[in-house]
Amino acid sequence: MELWFTENHSEGARFSIKIKEHIHSEKSKFQQIDFFDSYEFGRFFTLDGYVMVTEKDEFIYHDMIAHAPMATNPNIKNVLIIGGGDGGSVRELTRYSSIEKIDMVEIDERVVRCCQKYLPITASKLEDRRVNLYFEDGVKFVENKENIYDLIIVDSTDPIGPGEGLFTTEFYKNCYKALTNNGILINQNESPYYPFNAREMKRSHKKIKSIFPLSKIYQFHMPTYGSGHWLFGFASKGIDPIKDFKPKEWLKLGLKTKYYNIDIHKGAFALPTYVQEMLKNLED
Amino acid sequence: MELWFTENHSEGARFSIKIKEHIHSEKSKFQQIDFFDSYEFGRFFTLDGYVMVTEKDEFIYHDMIAHAPMATNPNIKNVLIIGGGDGGSVRELTRYSSIEKIDMVEIDERVVRCCQKYLPITASKLEDRRVNLYFEDGVKFVENKENIYDLIIVDSTDPIGPGEGLFTTEFYKNCYKALTNNGILINQNESPYYPFNAREMKRSHKKIKSIFPLSKIYQFHMPTYGSGHWLFGFASKGIDPIKDFKPKEWLKLGLKTKYYNIDIHKGAFALPTYVQEMLKNLED
Repeated sequence: MELWFTENHSEGARFSIKIKEHIHSEKSKFQQIDFFDSYEFGRFFTLDGYVMVTEKDEFIYHDMIAHAPMATNPNIKNVLIIGGGDGGSVRELTRYSSIEKIDMVEIDERVVRCCQKYLPITASKLEDRRVNLYFEDGVKFVENKENIYDLIIVDSTDPIGPGEGLFTTEFYKNCYKALTNNGILINQNESPYYPFNAREMKRSHKKIKSIFPLSKIYQFHMPTYGSGHWLFGFASKGIDPIKDFKPKEWLKLGLKTKYYNIDIHKGAFALPTYVQEMLKNLED
Repeated sequence: MELWFTENHSEGARFSIKIKEHIHSEKSKFQQIDFFDSYEFGRFFTLDGYVMVTEKDEFIYHDMIAHAPMATNPNIKNVLIIGGGDGGSVRELTRYSSIEKIDMVEIDERVVRCCQKYLPITASKLEDRRVNLYFEDGVKFVENKENIYDLIIVDSTDPIGPGEGLFTTEFYKNCYKALTNNGILINQNESPYYPFNAREMKRSHKKIKSIFPLSKIYQFHMPTYGSGHWLFGFASKGIDPIKDFKPKEWLKLGLKTKYYNIDIHKGAFALPTYVQEMLKNLED
């Protein structure tokens, strides 16, 4: 018998993973959660049938979400992560001794508990003494927060289901207020290639751009996400990921990373022409 | 009824494309050739069951294979393309009026004839007066050629089947001899992600590095190839894609490109740490 997990990347494209074992399945209050062991990608988990994290390539996503802002502003002390229940973003951030506090707000406690049980590779640092876990709605959590965080990471699913509120103008406005003057907002900004992701890429960038004085997009190769071409947003009140980038300070920390490095940092902000044009023509 | 084309990206990962119509199928002397119309990727064709070119993303591959060398040495006049039967590499090169001659050597005439019939988007410039088509073995074609070409592009399939000889040390040595002093070799250099491609990536880089004084790798996002993370090799007798890069001269040409641009040119040579390490540890 062969068991294959299949995800639709678009209406006309599918990606399938050969499964050793379906090790856990549950329906939480918010979504369907499944864990699998696979031949090619090791352990991985899905939410509502979409791949979130695989052992094989999670390092790419988490390197790019954490180190790009940290190498731009090494004085980041207070961090807010919204989503990111797998713990991978927390894990990378806890490697910086300069960080004093990480608030992580995940709406679905079951995602965290399952990852702690089945995916220690990402969840292992959730017990770091600097980490505070909040199991509540991130949209509400940032309301009325002012000038608190040096970094907010929106480590969300696609804007369907529980992640939807994390793609609204109201939410981004509250993030802006919650950030300090040197604050940075990093958000999961979808992908330019398949129609659904491309539409959401433009929508979220348009909203963030209307609120933040600086709003850029950077890219990375994420093989288990649709098209393998994935994006994060980098927004701030002025701090610039290229002009304010501090490669020497970052190198001094001696952090070993498997994807991120100081060349990739700069290279990732160089976008293909068709992506640049999509991000300019935001009225579509 | 639903018709899906499926390609194995590795033993444990598959990619499937929803098909409107299977419009052509034949077995040439060298390989199985198939053309399809699809919902997501438009017209595409496969060789021995592997996706070669789709209407949707061929521009990425052909932009990166042609413009990276041309923007490094704008004096390229004589070009040799080995493989590339779809004509996409020729199409991009014919946009440079400075190029005087393009020899294209494709072992399988049927690939060219089928692309001329079914895939005009890439094959349309094969009748440019500067293009000479040779239907023979590229490995033999470069034997005994000396100091002739300013650019050789190895636009090959994977190193199985008819493409195998294009990944040998002997062949790369003959390319070296066939190049002028300022000559550049660009080769399809596989991908770092899945085991088969990663092994071949290392093998071909190791061979080229042993022959050429300068040997670099650059990357791009190619959604319909396994993992979406694909590489070309850039080798030369000294000319450097970063130090000798001529962005101003290239911009003056006014070429419109959908993927390539002068930022991507530099960014593409910034490789993830795990890829850098694979390319250093070539003994594995």
